[in-house]
Amino acid sequence: MISASRRQLTRALALASTVVERRNTIPALGCIKIMANGKLTLESTDLDTSARVEMPYDDGGKHADMAFLLPNSRRVAAAVNAAGGDDVRLAPTRADNRIFMAAGKLTSQLIIQEASSFPTVDAVEHEDFSATLGEAELRQIARVLPAISKEETRYYLNGICVRHMGNWVYRFAATDGHRLMQVDVPLPGAMGMIPDNIIIPAAWIRLVMVHFRKTRNGAIFRFGRKLARNEDNGPLLPVETPGGQRIAMTADLDGLTFTLTSKLIDGTYPDYQRVVPTGYTHLVRIERAKLVQAISALSGLSLERGRAVKLIFEPGEVHCQLHSPDLGESHFELPATHNMPNGAEVGMNGNYALQQLAAFTGAEIELHFNEQAGMYPILWRDPGDTAFLAVLMPMRI
Amino acid sequence: MISASRRQLTRALALASTVVERRNTIPALGCIKIMANGKLTLESTDLDTSARVEMPYDDGGKHADMAFLLPNSRRVAAAVNAAGGDDVRLAPTRADNRIFMAAGKLTSQLIIQEASSFPTVDAVEHEDFSATLGEAELRQIARVLPAISKEETRYYLNGICVRHMGNWVYRFAATDGHRLMQVDVPLPGAMGMIPDNIIIPAAWIRLVMVHFRKTRNGAIFRFGRKLARNEDNGPLLPVETPGGQRIAMTADLDGLTFTLTSKLIDGTYPDYQRVVPTGYTHLVRIERAKLVQAISALSGLSLERGRAVKLIFEPGEVHCQLHSPDLGESHFELPATHNMPNGAEVGMNGNYALQQLAAFTGAEIELHFNEQAGMYPILWRDPGDTAFLAVLMPMRI
Repeated sequence: MISASRRQLTRALALASTVVERRNTIPALGCIKIMANGKLTLESTDLDTSARVEMPYDDGGKHADMAFLLPNSRRVAAAVNAAGGDDVRLAPTRADNRIFMAAGKLTSQLIIQEASSFPTVDAVEHEDFSATLGEAELRQIARVLPAISKEETRYYLNGICVRHMGNWVYRFAATDGHRLMQVDVPLPGAMGMIPDNIIIPAAWIRLVMVHFRKTRNGAIFRFGRKLARNEDNGPLLPVETPGGQRIAMTADLDGLTFTLTSKLIDGTYPDYQRVVPTGYTHLVRIERAKLVQAISALSGLSLERGRAVKLIFEPGEVHCQLHSPDLGESHFELPATHNMPNGAEVGMNGNYALQQLAAFTGAEIELHFNEQAGMYPILWRDPGDTAFLAVLMPMRI
Repeated sequence: MISASRRQLTRALALASTVVERRNTIPALGCIKIMANGKLTLESTDLDTSARVEMPYDDGGKHADMAFLLPNSRRVAAAVNAAGGDDVRLAPTRADNRIFMAAGKLTSQLIIQEASSFPTVDAVEHEDFSATLGEAELRQIARVLPAISKEETRYYLNGICVRHMGNWVYRFAATDGHRLMQVDVPLPGAMGMIPDNIIIPAAWIRLVMVHFRKTRNGAIFRFGRKLARNEDNGPLLPVETPGGQRIAMTADLDGLTFTLTSKLIDGTYPDYQRVVPTGYTHLVRIERAKLVQAISALSGLSLERGRAVKLIFEPGEVHCQLHSPDLGESHFELPATHNMPNGAEVGMNGNYALQQLAAFTGAEIELHFNEQAGMYPILWRDPGDTAFLAVLMPMRI
């Protein structure tokens, strides 16, 4: 019999359940592996991303060695949460496929599976790089998430590209071919080296944003390798497994140690720097809230998400236009400072434009154009926040 | 050109949109009919339920007579809301199928349809009964909603049955054959007569709960009839249309007059009073929060919604049990005062039991049983709140 805090175990089950897929063809992947051997450890994996939670438990001085797979962990977490009482007790039963669980006035003979059918859960076994990311750093990285491609044929765009720019500044970039967002984040406490242009999967970074954004002392980001097992008379020194690069984020969450590990995306990220325009001669300066209002109002008057909004430049003004075959033609005028030719036009996807605008924080936004506004990528900048930039391809209307 | 408050028009469009079905085979039913003729009126209908909003407008002293159908009203409401400015201006255009709309810096040539294709919207034309329902009365009526049947073959159970019990007390009841809930609500200000056992549709009462629960001065409930048109040389006195019974709820919502009208369900409600047990000899008294906890925890340990929970009576206690083929066997013990035979058992749908418990408000709940507990309907009462009662059929396990 072992016992653990009910509050902690409820949270640990919920955390470990985040990578358990609801529908699963491999039964073990629908389970959480629970082990009690010094620490109570909960593990889950979808073979790309893995979760591991460690928490304390009490074995009453008698060494308990327990390992089993728990199916339907979300249901069990809900029941344990509802049951009340301070502790949850777990004990083996005479039946191999049952474990005894008690919480408050609830007792249960839970159906379990054998631990041996569970795959080995990934970990960063040889660490090459580590850095502590606090709320500020994670908030910066989160700005580029909207530009991650959701389209699966160019799978190498389904993530964030990371590289070291020098002086402990790291660049995080995402693009889907229609837009690019990049942010430079200083990580002065970083240690070790990270290879250029590794691609971090979107699924992992989104889970990280959910779970690690609000940690008391920051989360530790690590990059490293999985090591080859030396069972087959191999060399004694650690040897890299092919495709064994791993990333992990770890934090202490009120006494739980939570780690999310992932494979990297195995591909070559395109040279996105070539897309960032330089030497543009035309500049439009607009109040960000006003442009948000214009595009929100116009996008409301269309059934089609991402319908093109056309910007027409007049002296001291921008006319925004949207033509919807279902709702009609609409206009929104707003003041702007610019040096565009009178009557110049450019079209852009309204949805993308709103996401770009939401990624900025300042009161003003600068759009940089070439002479022929509608033909070249548009550069979005905030002169007060140069760590971030965005690029948007125009749409022909 | 007319103008109206943007804040009011946004809300009026949203209110009128609540009965516009998103997918519609009759194009006019996907629209809101907007009329300006003394008042600005917005109407919508799905042929069973109709919405009508009246609000003030300004025609600048020139009498404006405007009537058109607006498709995609939810989109227009969102755009008008985003556009800013105090007022919305509307004006006819040279094109029949366009109306000019302006709000803040937004101007639009909105696509509209002709008003003539819109069906006549239902109304209570000859009033037989009216009563003012405040938050307290609507909250009482809302207690029986969970028992309304969702199954469509016995369509007459898809609503709430209303009857006068005497002394201005009205009984609202709902049943789906598995459970019954009824509540007696005094309406001392009620005027007129309501026929016994009219059936109010679930769709209408649910919309009423959404929109009329928080009104400053209460909502006016009316029952009456739609009148036959006397165009065909009929009698001059008002004559009832066959199937013309209507109910309506009206309230002033910050300057908007909002009315939801509905047909009644045309059917005979079963004599539900026969199901309410009398003369039971066995009584179980349990702390309501504890029973909620027991059934919540046990229901968590099942993949099947509404899995049977078995109650086994022991001296001073109830043992709750749930056997799930997927998760295992679970028990929850809780203290109870009862005069049930030792070891007596009764099974009940866990989901229904939780809904019954949620409909009560007191600290304690009484379950009344017959000698053979598992064979007869269970009566649920709160001795401190006798206006409400619930009945639940047991499940054989």
